[in-house]
Amino acid sequence: MLNAEINSNVLKDLVEIVGTIVDEVKINLTEDGLSLKAVDPAHVAMVDLDLDKDAFESYEANETEIGLNLKKVEQFLKLAGAGDVVRMEHDEEDNRLVMEVNNITQKMALLDTAGMTDPNVPSLDLPLNLKVKGKHVLNGVKASENISDHISITANPDGFEILSEEDEDMVRLSLGEDDLEELSANEEVRSLFALDYFSNMIKCVSKETTLDIELGADYPIKIEFSFAEDNGNVRYLLAPRIEST
Amino acid sequence: MLNAEINSNVLKDLVEIVGTIVDEVKINLTEDGLSLKAVDPAHVAMVDLDLDKDAFESYEANETEIGLNLKKVEQFLKLAGAGDVVRMEHDEEDNRLVMEVNNITQKMALLDTAGMTDPNVPSLDLPLNLKVKGKHVLNGVKASENISDHISITANPDGFEILSEEDEDMVRLSLGEDDLEELSANEEVRSLFALDYFSNMIKCVSKETTLDIELGADYPIKIEFSFAEDNGNVRYLLAPRIEST
Amino acid sequence: MLNAEINSNVLKDLVEIVGTIVDEVKINLTEDGLSLKAVDPAHVAMVDLDLDKDAFESYEANETEIGLNLKKVEQFLKLAGAGDVVRMEHDEEDNRLVMEVNNITQKMALLDTAGMTDPNVPSLDLPLNLKVKGKHVLNGVKASENISDHISITANPDGFEILSEEDEDMVRLSLGEDDLEELSANEEVRSLFALDYFSNMIKCVSKETTLDIELGADYPIKIEFSFAEDNGNVRYLLAPRIEST
Repeated sequence: MLNAEINSNVLKDLVEIVGTIVDEVKINLTEDGLSLKAVDPAHVAMVDLDLDKDAFESYEANETEIGLNLKKVEQFLKLAGAGDVVRMEHDEEDNRLVMEVNNITQKMALLDTAGMTDPNVPSLDLPLNLKVKGKHVLNGVKASENISDHISITANPDGFEILSEEDEDMVRLSLGEDDLEELSANEEVRSLFALDYFSNMIKCVSKETTLDIELGADYPIKIEFSFAEDNGNVRYLLAPRIEST
Repeated sequence: MLNAEINSNVLKDLVEIVGTIVDEVKINLTEDGLSLKAVDPAHVAMVDLDLDKDAFESYEANETEIGLNLKKVEQFLKLAGAGDVVRMEHDEEDNRLVMEVNNITQKMALLDTAGMTDPNVPSLDLPLNLKVKGKHVLNGVKASENISDHISITANPDGFEILSEEDEDMVRLSLGEDDLEELSANEEVRSLFALDYFSNMIKCVSKETTLDIELGADYPIKIEFSFAEDNGNVRYLLAPRIEST
Repeated sequence: MLNAEINSNVLKDLVEIVGTIVDEVKINLTEDGLSLKAVDPAHVAMVDLDLDKDAFESYEANETEIGLNLKKVEQFLKLAGAGDVVRMEHDEEDNRLVMEVNNITQKMALLDTAGMTDPNVPSLDLPLNLKVKGKHVLNGVKASENISDHISITANPDGFEILSEEDEDMVRLSLGEDDLEELSANEEVRSLFALDYFSNMIKCVSKETTLDIELGADYPIKIEFSFAEDNGNVRYLLAPRIEST
């Protein structure tokens, strides 16, 4: 059972965050809120998201799973003005999600969740942790797109760097301790990532969002941030690219 | 003879309204204003428009016909800023329309109107009449575009509905009496329309324009509205789609 | 040697002005500023540009040449916000240009200038001179694009005209003495130009920029204007189109 109302802005954020990884997702509902885990088709990127019931205008649910086509929800949300409240109800008989905004009612067929298992989120103990404003990482990625199809991310006790090079061209974002919100590092670590995955994954991050980043040497990167006025939490994981030598 | 000045905004509206139905149109001029009737190439949609001479800044004309390529007028109007006054003159010798705005003069060849006959506007006695703001209909059509290529429009003494369904998905705009400007209905009627025609036909309607709609059961829909500060009047007619059974 | 700081807006203007003619350019640096000359691949249009050292926030250079890929600079400049200061340094050892903005450093390989010779700027003694706001010429060109692929430009003691015609259609921008900033003409001259070249060449001109135009009869047109708060100067030359008879 689900019977809830939510600000369309919050739902748009959720769809955008998850939609960078997958088009279809299984959402786990409990009486305290929703959660989901998904990996992209190539098993390179993962999203792990929670949204507390306090993020909703009103929320009532029993423990259940619904399989959602995010593209359909995204199209429905184009009918909502900024801040309009969306009503959602799970029609269990027909296995459809009924969504309402303004005078529009949309009933969308849900996906069969039988074959949709939650991916295992690897437990990583990454040696280096830092916090940085979204705008810096977005700018570093945008700069890298002019140069190459991969980036290296390096951090050490002095700061954080995104670097991209190809032939004689090179571009680098360098952030010192003062440009970061927080930095706890005892060593230097560096990993290489596919730029298109990295870029796609963070494209829904806003400039002023603080990203909590964990890094290792040739290890996945973990990027965590809040949304929905801190009632929602996102953890992205991206596998490193093996460096060709 | 035609020698007139008109606010470019009014002329833009006219071109947009008629341009959703045809690219070329015969305009009938009299000393009191202009009028035109046109059907789309597939004979599914019709526009019937009047513009009184009071819509013009200045207006002098004798009874005559001119055959206009609306695409050329649309391109010319891109040279006008909002609210700029456009001067129009019929050069009868060369059969060209001379249009002027700012320091630009354009002379455009007119079409031979010999083969352009006014379509007959069917006289329909439709049983149900209602008035509704453009924004509602625009929103209902936008929602339907996510689902199917046709819509059903239903009205009854309780309200008005645009519905689209395909497989398990359904979207519906429901407007009660309170959401409508006016409703006079003694029965329930319902007709089916091709969504692309309906959508194209109303795409130039503004959100705040009041649409005067007449409906029957499996009959054409008639949508009437004013423009040019009530000096212009538009009647669109759209044939119903025969329901496959 | 080059070690300079420049407002990104000025650098964007320079790249846009030169980029309408060529993608790669040789820039001549002296201790007083920079200059460049370039012709388009078809040898129809030419740009001749100076930028004084006063246009820079700081400027130090020895006499040298650098070969620049303007597309790379254009992409780099997308990383700069409006008004951000860009630092530039010539890394002579690697023959790379090092550019910095915010926390981004980009090193771009420079082109070998050995094969890049400065084109000769023909010394033309054009009989007619006038000054006109960019907006008029932009509007005349936009109007012409509706009609034909070439324009004729005419000037005489009474004014200035851009005319385009094809079959029965014609469009004309006519500016009298009062619409011009200045006009010195003793005769009437007229030249024909390819519209795409003309349009492309002036597309970076702003509406309020005063263009200093020199014209002859079937001669190249010379269009001169200032940028960078009068610390930069541009001269475009466009060859006439031979009129088919």
